[in-house]
Amino acid sequence: MSYEIKGLNEECGVFGVFGTKNAEQLTYFGLHSLQHRGQEGAGIVSSDGTTLKQFRNKGLLAEVFANEADLNALAGTAAIGHVRYGTSGNDSLNNLQPFLFEFYDGQVALAHNGNLTNARALRKNLECAGAVFQSNSDTEILIHLIRQKHELSFKEALKASLNEVHGGFAFVLLQNERLYAALDPHGFRPLCIGQLKNGAYVVASETCALDMLGAKFVRDVLPGELITIDHSGMTIEHYTDQTQLALCSMEFIYFARPDSIIHGVNVHNARKQMGRLLAKECPVQADIVIGVPNSSLSAASGFAEEAGLPYEMGLIKSQYVARTFIQPTQELRERGVKLKLSAVRGVVEGKSVAIVDDSIVRGTTSKQIVKLLKEAGAKEVHMRIASPPLKFPCFYGIDISTRSELIAAEKSVAEIKDLIGADSLGFLSIESLIAAIALPDGRTVPNGGLTVAYFDGNYPTPLYDYEASYRASLAQQQERKG
Amino acid sequence: MSYEIKGLNEECGVFGVFGTKNAEQLTYFGLHSLQHRGQEGAGIVSSDGTTLKQFRNKGLLAEVFANEADLNALAGTAAIGHVRYGTSGNDSLNNLQPFLFEFYDGQVALAHNGNLTNARALRKNLECAGAVFQSNSDTEILIHLIRQKHELSFKEALKASLNEVHGGFAFVLLQNERLYAALDPHGFRPLCIGQLKNGAYVVASETCALDMLGAKFVRDVLPGELITIDHSGMTIEHYTDQTQLALCSMEFIYFARPDSIIHGVNVHNARKQMGRLLAKECPVQADIVIGVPNSSLSAASGFAEEAGLPYEMGLIKSQYVARTFIQPTQELRERGVKLKLSAVRGVVEGKSVAIVDDSIVRGTTSKQIVKLLKEAGAKEVHMRIASPPLKFPCFYGIDISTRSELIAAEKSVAEIKDLIGADSLGFLSIESLIAAIALPDGRTVPNGGLTVAYFDGNYPTPLYDYEASYRASLAQQQERKG
Amino acid sequence: MSYEIKGLNEECGVFGVFGTKNAEQLTYFGLHSLQHRGQEGAGIVSSDGTTLKQFRNKGLLAEVFANEADLNALAGTAAIGHVRYGTSGNDSLNNLQPFLFEFYDGQVALAHNGNLTNARALRKNLECAGAVFQSNSDTEILIHLIRQKHELSFKEALKASLNEVHGGFAFVLLQNERLYAALDPHGFRPLCIGQLKNGAYVVASETCALDMLGAKFVRDVLPGELITIDHSGMTIEHYTDQTQLALCSMEFIYFARPDSIIHGVNVHNARKQMGRLLAKECPVQADIVIGVPNSSLSAASGFAEEAGLPYEMGLIKSQYVARTFIQPTQELRERGVKLKLSAVRGVVEGKSVAIVDDSIVRGTTSKQIVKLLKEAGAKEVHMRIASPPLKFPCFYGIDISTRSELIAAEKSVAEIKDLIGADSLGFLSIESLIAAIALPDGRTVPNGGLTVAYFDGNYPTPLYDYEASYRASLAQQQERKG
Amino acid sequence: MSYEIKGLNEECGVFGVFGTKNAEQLTYFGLHSLQHRGQEGAGIVSSDGTTLKQFRNKGLLAEVFANEADLNALAGTAAIGHVRYGTSGNDSLNNLQPFLFEFYDGQVALAHNGNLTNARALRKNLECAGAVFQSNSDTEILIHLIRQKHELSFKEALKASLNEVHGGFAFVLLQNERLYAALDPHGFRPLCIGQLKNGAYVVASETCALDMLGAKFVRDVLPGELITIDHSGMTIEHYTDQTQLALCSMEFIYFARPDSIIHGVNVHNARKQMGRLLAKECPVQADIVIGVPNSSLSAASGFAEEAGLPYEMGLIKSQYVARTFIQPTQELRERGVKLKLSAVRGVVEGKSVAIVDDSIVRGTTSKQIVKLLKEAGAKEVHMRIASPPLKFPCFYGIDISTRSELIAAEKSVAEIKDLIGADSLGFLSIESLIAAIALPDGRTVPNGGLTVAYFDGNYPTPLYDYEASYRASLAQQQERKG
Repeated sequence: MSYEIKGLNEECGVFGVFGTKNAEQLTYFGLHSLQHRGQEGAGIVSSDGTTLKQFRNKGLLAEVFANEADLNALAGTAAIGHVRYGTSGNDSLNNLQPFLFEFYDGQVALAHNGNLTNARALRKNLECAGAVFQSNSDTEILIHLIRQKHELSFKEALKASLNEVHGGFAFVLLQNERLYAALDPHGFRPLCIGQLKNGAYVVASETCALDMLGAKFVRDVLPGELITIDHSGMTIEHYTDQTQLALCSMEFIYFARPDSIIHGVNVHNARKQMGRLLAKECPVQADIVIGVPNSSLSAASGFAEEAGLPYEMGLIKSQYVARTFIQPTQELRERGVKLKLSAVRGVVEGKSVAIVDDSIVRGTTSKQIVKLLKEAGAKEVHMRIASPPLKFPCFYGIDISTRSELIAAEKSVAEIKDLIGADSLGFLSIESLIAAIALPDGRTVPNGGLTVAYFDGNYPTPLYDYEASYRASLAQQQERKG
Repeated sequence: MSYEIKGLNEECGVFGVFGTKNAEQLTYFGLHSLQHRGQEGAGIVSSDGTTLKQFRNKGLLAEVFANEADLNALAGTAAIGHVRYGTSGNDSLNNLQPFLFEFYDGQVALAHNGNLTNARALRKNLECAGAVFQSNSDTEILIHLIRQKHELSFKEALKASLNEVHGGFAFVLLQNERLYAALDPHGFRPLCIGQLKNGAYVVASETCALDMLGAKFVRDVLPGELITIDHSGMTIEHYTDQTQLALCSMEFIYFARPDSIIHGVNVHNARKQMGRLLAKECPVQADIVIGVPNSSLSAASGFAEEAGLPYEMGLIKSQYVARTFIQPTQELRERGVKLKLSAVRGVVEGKSVAIVDDSIVRGTTSKQIVKLLKEAGAKEVHMRIASPPLKFPCFYGIDISTRSELIAAEKSVAEIKDLIGADSLGFLSIESLIAAIALPDGRTVPNGGLTVAYFDGNYPTPLYDYEASYRASLAQQQERKG
Repeated sequence: MSYEIKGLNEECGVFGVFGTKNAEQLTYFGLHSLQHRGQEGAGIVSSDGTTLKQFRNKGLLAEVFANEADLNALAGTAAIGHVRYGTSGNDSLNNLQPFLFEFYDGQVALAHNGNLTNARALRKNLECAGAVFQSNSDTEILIHLIRQKHELSFKEALKASLNEVHGGFAFVLLQNERLYAALDPHGFRPLCIGQLKNGAYVVASETCALDMLGAKFVRDVLPGELITIDHSGMTIEHYTDQTQLALCSMEFIYFARPDSIIHGVNVHNARKQMGRLLAKECPVQADIVIGVPNSSLSAASGFAEEAGLPYEMGLIKSQYVARTFIQPTQELRERGVKLKLSAVRGVVEGKSVAIVDDSIVRGTTSKQIVKLLKEAGAKEVHMRIASPPLKFPCFYGIDISTRSELIAAEKSVAEIKDLIGADSLGFLSIESLIAAIALPDGRTVPNGGLTVAYFDGNYPTPLYDYEASYRASLAQQQERKG
Repeated sequence: MSYEIKGLNEECGVFGVFGTKNAEQLTYFGLHSLQHRGQEGAGIVSSDGTTLKQFRNKGLLAEVFANEADLNALAGTAAIGHVRYGTSGNDSLNNLQPFLFEFYDGQVALAHNGNLTNARALRKNLECAGAVFQSNSDTEILIHLIRQKHELSFKEALKASLNEVHGGFAFVLLQNERLYAALDPHGFRPLCIGQLKNGAYVVASETCALDMLGAKFVRDVLPGELITIDHSGMTIEHYTDQTQLALCSMEFIYFARPDSIIHGVNVHNARKQMGRLLAKECPVQADIVIGVPNSSLSAASGFAEEAGLPYEMGLIKSQYVARTFIQPTQELRERGVKLKLSAVRGVVEGKSVAIVDDSIVRGTTSKQIVKLLKEAGAKEVHMRIASPPLKFPCFYGIDISTRSELIAAEKSVAEIKDLIGADSLGFLSIESLIAAIALPDGRTVPNGGLTVAYFDGNYPTPLYDYEASYRASLAQQQERKG
């Protein structure tokens, strides 16, 4: 297996609630605030105490549940939900979550955010033993592993199975009488617990879903924990002792919502601090600072403050672009038709501009941004990136392009600057990135608590399925460079 | 007629292009960048030189043309388009523009942004003479007036008719061989001309539509002008000499897109300057400045700069909210479910917050924002409004609530502060508003060039249909106060 | 104007009900039973006593009102409705009925089945006087004529206007306090009155709509009558004395539903009698008789009975074909893919088949049917047509193809037989057609009471708009023949 | 397990084609002619020689493939398809076929018409061994059985698995290089083979699908056969020698399309013969004979011929009813609103009517029909049923209501007559049913070749899963009767 093959459950959002009426409505609104984690599809499985019911479809949550009757049909006292990230090439309805499985001895629903690094090996073993999979999703493996362990209770089988899957994962499972939530031993993906005013417990990928519901934040789920919520309340267990927090730094860089708080660190604050440290590390002579909307606005404002430069709105992002199906023809594109970003001529004309973005992947967007600003009259364009150069793929659930596509894996900063046409280019250092992801009291998350493998290649786990092809790609690169 | 009755064409966007292939595609993308001016419906009428074809429907442009075939069916060399603002209570397809009229002697299409102040009187006269209207729209009056003048050529009839309608209007008309654009004698609504690289002319409500297409800005349409574009090029005429620029200040305050430039003034810059002047006029002791996304971010950053305070992202607006059809039940709302705005606890907790908004209409949103921030831990909330108190309705095409709903028409600033629960409240002065809407060289638009009637009640024109009920409402208010 | 230009309101169904709750529901179900009269679009305008509300769209009634809320929004105590026949080339929503017009002095809704022969002349006159039409429909002319007569009451203006329009028409109009129904002076189109058990009156194009609602049949509307229904009951007036029943014979031949009764004659019985008389006039040596489903089954069974031959189901019509959007490619068509009709090999193989159809228009369908039967093994195929040869167009509301397309206008019966590949061909005589359209007591509708102009060219009225081009086409034909 | 629980794959249609371009189009049109076998959902899996692709959704075929692009995306050289019968209560997309399974060693698609009688036992065994099912469908069991046999080749595993499943089944399977079709050892369900003009083989539930495509009929698939079609042609094998034809008689009575030919017997002819024999067994004194459209028209015409009575169209079935979502309220229903069937007053008024229907299940429809005819003026209504009384459920794939719902299981013919309000009632005898299902040369299908268990309770196989509850229900009935 080549590591280029992307997992299918990357960058999703999960939600669960147990023990309250309107569970399906609460899940709807919880997912609504997690919509930024996935726009390809959405689904909810609810329980009325007797039966699990499922509704899922492609599209935004509001499109999936455009017909209110479809949500009302899920009326229940417990529910889990999922929003799915859009990946091209596999648009089967089968892959939409939560999955719902029916057995002679009961129903189980399952939703997942993350990526399993040994999925392929596990699946092949299972298939050789007769297993039939219904999706291309690595998520489904967990239920097969559980069902292989007929001698164990469901919870014991779940714990044992969680020890067999590797990689980054946040699972929520629902049975009629119980909700489970489990986090991988490194806590790559965020997962938190809240409590509604009526006492019911909520689990969610991000705290913004708790805020949406007026739920009180209880605690983050910790690496290796299995949370069980039923009518007697919440139980916290460890399914393994081999844990080591290695929270994904990309959540802070661009993926999570700015109002979310992960392990005590507010995402907006972390981004602003990245901007501030970037301004120190890569100062710039410029008239104004602008950010690439929306994810880079926090960093840009931090950069401007630290640099003592005016923070301006020099780029506008169309809020309607996501739903435009008609694309400009090549001819129109050459005429200049651009759907997504507009430069504000009145702001940038005649100015030397420092433009702050959160990351550079392939460099094509950066090139377009520089061009856009220069066409709008910017005298100089200085690109500042509020994260280190992305050189290595993510195997834990973030859809970073493969290594061969990562411009920083192949090119030096100077080469990238020339390619994108900027007048200067600077990246944040890994040290500053870690320093920026800090608690309110200034303490950073302990070094080992963050994964920065995308920048330095030091993966905190073996790569399993991906090991061989990853090594091969490194070797090829050496050859090209050598 | 009560002035409470809203016109139906308020706050729309118009676009036209003549003399280029792909006219329908260019119109689609032009309208796309004007989508902020109206989300209720959209439509395009195109010409292939022989026949005008129409497609229009309710919804966002991307929804109206979800099926690419519907756009391709309009393939032509000239087109006009319209995006329509959502008003409750009249959702008939009949009211969607552009209108297309078929006569034995040819077809005419018509689109409109604005509000006619003598529409009702004109319509009644026309109906008494036998006219049959197909919509509730004041727009349709123009074509009836034109058709009454059978002895005149179309252009002469159009000019004469433009002298009969009063109020604020930007009309675009299309015949197979000609595109017309006309602006009211006070230029209440913005309308500009651009030119594509292939020489074809474009007209649009805002310059952001020109930028989208890579079109060069040629000039703003001036009050009382009639622009004619045909195969021989562009002709500019005046249908009246009685003109006086009275550009709507609300376009700058919240309606237009920040990257647009109207009569030389960039909207973002004007807003930022409003924020700066507001900080001078209504200074505040606070830890941070935040803006209400998205329309108040420019003003908030200006305020922060001038005040020397950190500019923070303390409120998040869900980018998916517009399309959510399922609303929280009252029960969920009481539990705290909030769809539109989220406060960033990590930013505002324990802080004294200056929150900048563009305007206060009824005060309900302001009250919610203050509550949201306080629930997220803000110590103090100081509301600053980057425009003067709204006391008088607009009769020229902006949907400002009726006078009885305008909180500032009835209450003092101190009373409003108490009602919304803020710790302090300040508004921009009319003088500063005018000063802020300035050219790049610092010159403001001449005093008479802006309409600020919403703040001081000095309407630059008679009110016609609305005169009687408006006077009555003023009298009632005096009584209540007295 | 060429008579080839088809009117746009041909072959539709109208319905109205006044003075009962659930009027919108009753109209829905009434229209449902008239769906065979038009599948392109449908609409309802209802009144709650104060306001008229409209809903209309393209598609089958069940598609138009797929969302029950759209029907419920029309809740009222009076309503009119319309189903529209599909004509290619003009699919504008504007042309869907009922039309709803709003005037300063009230609202009026209008629906129409028929075709006006002087529409073009009237419209041009009106347009020259300044009228603006919203549709291509001749229906709209009536409201313009009414509104021209401001000195008259609405009813007087309506009566005067009904005297100005010529051709075939059945109009229903709705105001908040009154429902009108009017039939042309020749009664070309069917229109009947019924009464619900609660006393409320119903008008409908066919009696099958009364049966659907359990309404008692009251009487047919007679030529030149204007029916007024309001809270004081029903009033019957004549707007003209110059009347002469000339009921369209095509209603009996193929258009009306077999369970409807028009002027006392049941449609199925008439068709069966056509089949019987056809068997007498054009006897055949055959093993079996089959009909072309569905409209020819009545005639075929009459033919079989009279001929003493077995009546068999030798052709199957797919009941799903209407909604199939994917058409076989030319390649598949050549391979034999056929969507609409299937021959029953087990029935026709080795047999001499008499196939009964209701009419031949262009001959293409007949040719396909012969081919289908022969491919399924029929030894001989004898085509019998249960109506006379169609040689002349209809100007009163039935969409018969133009004269140049009517195969029987140009070819002899022998030539047609060869063209369609049948072993023999026979048509019903005009005399037998008239004889077949008989009352239960055997009395036929008086000779003058039926229009058979499609067969003999003796139109009971002048042709107005169509006169010149019709004469020209006759002359051309003479030349070709000569 | 109670036998009341309906299987989920009952009454479906399957289709397959291998070795021709446009395979997906051919499958679409093949399924189109099988639409009467299932309207709940439809799907196609195609192969381009390398990859299997799937598209399936709820609704009629034309709705599922409303977007032509969805069909074009399946372009391939082999395909299988499925139309699914509507059963309430389980509308999951998961249950729509063909299923597509992906394994590390290749893809397999699977579609099924029938019902497995030991599905529950097999599934429980498989689940206990760790199997995870993706649907509630018994169809899926086959793939699990196959995958359990890793030591065997796919074909050998398939053959072995076909020996493990019991009941009625017609399976089609597709791999990239091979199409399989298999019929159960009793041949309960029809399945036939055809050949296109280009030599490619086609398999289909009924011959009407071959006719649609212009394919030559090759032969019926025989009990216990496994057909393999690949690039080297067609191979026919037996996976078992224990075969005995027991073709489902309900296919002839009402389920199959009249133009289909099953084991040499044309369905229309069989029905007509049922009508003839019914007229002999249960003669009637009546004025006219009418059939319940559409499935009873063949039998009714046979009855009329034998009885020497006029065959009339006394009931009309709305061709639009299937797609009407808005149902009459109870109030309207009481007023007489009826959507589905209309009586033709002109035909039945004052007449003694013999009404022929194909079967009586619960008796509710029969009761309504009698009422409808009497309300339309029928003097007497004599009900004749062209099949024997339905007393026992079907376990082989036809959705006959459970025993407790079958009116004839509990009531005598005289009791049923009174319940439905008919003046007389007669059923066909089992002997005549068997005699009617005859080859063209008059030979009947040998007695053992037809299943008539629904009438006499003599099931040709053990009932497995259903045995216990079926015996219990018989005992209960004895008690009630005793």
